[in-house]
Amino acid sequence: MSGFASVAAESDAADPLAPFRSRFVIDDDLIYLDGNSLGRLPTATIEATRRIVEEEWAHELVRGWEHWIDQGVAVGDRLAPLIGAAPGEVAVCDQTSVNLYKVASAAMRASGRPNVVTDRGNFPSDRYVLEAVAGAHGGRLIFLPEDPSREQIEEAMNDSVGVLSLSHVAYRSGAMLDGAAVTAIAHDHGAYMVWDLAHSAGSVPVALNEWNADLAVGCTYKHLNGGPGAPGYLYVRSDLQSVLEQPIPGWFSHSDQFAMAQEYDPSPTIRRFVVGTPPMISLVAAAVGIDLTAKAGIDAIRTKSIALTEAFLAGIESRDDRGFTVVTPRDPRRRGSHVTLGHDHAYQISQALRARGVVPDFREPNLIRCGFAPLYTTFTEVEQALAVIDDVMTSGDYLSFPATRQRVT
Amino acid sequence: MSGFASVAAESDAADPLAPFRSRFVIDDDLIYLDGNSLGRLPTATIEATRRIVEEEWAHELVRGWEHWIDQGVAVGDRLAPLIGAAPGEVAVCDQTSVNLYKVASAAMRASGRPNVVTDRGNFPSDRYVLEAVAGAHGGRLIFLPEDPSREQIEEAMNDSVGVLSLSHVAYRSGAMLDGAAVTAIAHDHGAYMVWDLAHSAGSVPVALNEWNADLAVGCTYKHLNGGPGAPGYLYVRSDLQSVLEQPIPGWFSHSDQFAMAQEYDPSPTIRRFVVGTPPMISLVAAAVGIDLTAKAGIDAIRTKSIALTEAFLAGIESRDDRGFTVVTPRDPRRRGSHVTLGHDHAYQISQALRARGVVPDFREPNLIRCGFAPLYTTFTEVEQALAVIDDVMTSGDYLSFPATRQRVT
Repeated sequence: MSGFASVAAESDAADPLAPFRSRFVIDDDLIYLDGNSLGRLPTATIEATRRIVEEEWAHELVRGWEHWIDQGVAVGDRLAPLIGAAPGEVAVCDQTSVNLYKVASAAMRASGRPNVVTDRGNFPSDRYVLEAVAGAHGGRLIFLPEDPSREQIEEAMNDSVGVLSLSHVAYRSGAMLDGAAVTAIAHDHGAYMVWDLAHSAGSVPVALNEWNADLAVGCTYKHLNGGPGAPGYLYVRSDLQSVLEQPIPGWFSHSDQFAMAQEYDPSPTIRRFVVGTPPMISLVAAAVGIDLTAKAGIDAIRTKSIALTEAFLAGIESRDDRGFTVVTPRDPRRRGSHVTLGHDHAYQISQALRARGVVPDFREPNLIRCGFAPLYTTFTEVEQALAVIDDVMTSGDYLSFPATRQRVT
Repeated sequence: MSGFASVAAESDAADPLAPFRSRFVIDDDLIYLDGNSLGRLPTATIEATRRIVEEEWAHELVRGWEHWIDQGVAVGDRLAPLIGAAPGEVAVCDQTSVNLYKVASAAMRASGRPNVVTDRGNFPSDRYVLEAVAGAHGGRLIFLPEDPSREQIEEAMNDSVGVLSLSHVAYRSGAMLDGAAVTAIAHDHGAYMVWDLAHSAGSVPVALNEWNADLAVGCTYKHLNGGPGAPGYLYVRSDLQSVLEQPIPGWFSHSDQFAMAQEYDPSPTIRRFVVGTPPMISLVAAAVGIDLTAKAGIDAIRTKSIALTEAFLAGIESRDDRGFTVVTPRDPRRRGSHVTLGHDHAYQISQALRARGVVPDFREPNLIRCGFAPLYTTFTEVEQALAVIDDVMTSGDYLSFPATRQRVT
């Protein structure tokens, strides 16, 4: 152990992102491996949310809208470089599922085709929304297996498919698709490519323009550290903005919002895909997280992410008598920033870990997700987490925790 | 003037809601008549937003969702009494336009009919969204004139109409419809009634269940003082919740959210109409405003609202040489809590008033909206605003302000 500990300490000492940890509020007695569900609080967010509440709202009142009104697009511009988009191609607005509905509906309408392709492992909202969108266009959702290969995607595509929609990094397995190659498959078959970047943005390089992607959505509360339920975002490639028709035209979507015009004349810009008034306090928090991530730089984040997940995987694989299976691809080029372990007692183990101050995530039926956030996760924490896992498995006391999740209705 | 001043001071002294003013952050050099665009900041919101950021998000991290997850419905339960709904019938979620899209689409689908009826004076998002919804069902939007009479509504209805959707209090004129009577007209023609309560909730009594209304939406940032862009809400009458199908099924809409199930099995409750993760910081702020309004009681609010608007109208009507027309109904039973004045120089006057510390709202092409918020507007402020209006009109210096609004794109 001491040799490993020394390696972890050395890695932390050499980590160029190490100074970023102090920009977050951290309780040192907690090893947090769920930043891919909800990222940590940046210290600057405290001041930013205080300011919009106590200074702007309190004293500017409605006049605040003179500078708030376009913040959804302005913050989108600050997010754009992290996902390889140009200014004017991204808006932070609504929640991810609503944004997916808007862009997938717009693409399906433009395609004139009935069917949508996604994979069985996609996030539930994605599957449900895409199924509804396909149904509304007289078609159906064609399912790929979870974490599909390029060949499987290629096989599923045909000229009935208007939209191919996939998560760039899968929320369950952490598997990452080849953005350029998959986008090309969609285009080869005349379909629009809609990416869900929820687990990608802020954790892996995303190059929407380089991939020639059409549309994308994502959330800001995971690797972008935007706060609980922070607004989602959408990307519409510039040449599509004046062409596509989204299904929920609001006053923000109009070419001249405050004309309150009788006729709906859609904006030719990204605003066309924005519907209503943004939740400003949550949006301001999201902006701080986005700016912090952009400042760190996605390449440095990715380098450290691979090192963290490699260290964790090496630790897990050093003991093969615990019953864990590694669900996440072993090749770092094919995964994002979380590692998913399968285990027959996954739910019990995840509870036992939480009780000992290590917070992973549990996913039905048997998955433990461990997320690594390069802006604040240390190599020492990885080592400590591995030690706690060893301890939980050796003692067997995880068996004293409830075996199944309580149903939430 | 001194006689009038004394009446205003006496009214303030006798006002049972007067103590509520101290529960808001107030700059005494500003007369704020736009609480119907953005309500003021309750002092308790400062602590509530601080707590969710600095205590809950910072230290509970993802574990916060154990108590956040159902807050949209929990806060809806606290809002329900203000709009005459029962617990379990209201959810605070998404923005108003998205909620209108969801409930209007659900009703249209259930109706099996093609057309929607609304009025030309309805809020732009409502008109655009309803037109899109009608179009998606192979029909069109049938327009009533602005501020329609019951007879005009009756005339427009026929068995092609699936949804009648109107604002209970009109955003431009402040005219208030008879909720029970209009709902009955919709039902007489076999249509669903969808109310927009944006300018009603927290300012006038709303009795959705008593009216037998089907669906409603609204926002929390006007008379509910929820903060800039605070989330909207929706109401679905309990017997419709397991019947209607809304178009954007997210993971929150599922009967067992965390099962992340393969099949979409819609919740039989109000959750069916919730899509994704709520913007928690903005939601917490909305909850404070809602609770404060509920505590004051809608009957006391309505009584004072009528007294405030009567005092303002009396002052305006006492001088007929200013060129103002009163757009708002003169009968207090037929208006909400804002008064709209028409004037050829409305845009210039509204700017001159702002420059002198009175904040009304301007609406194209020639309307000045003055909102009165019984929780913090005083009778003395009404008197002072009238004096400033007199001064602006007498001096004629409003003519030095730009004559037309800058176009916002």
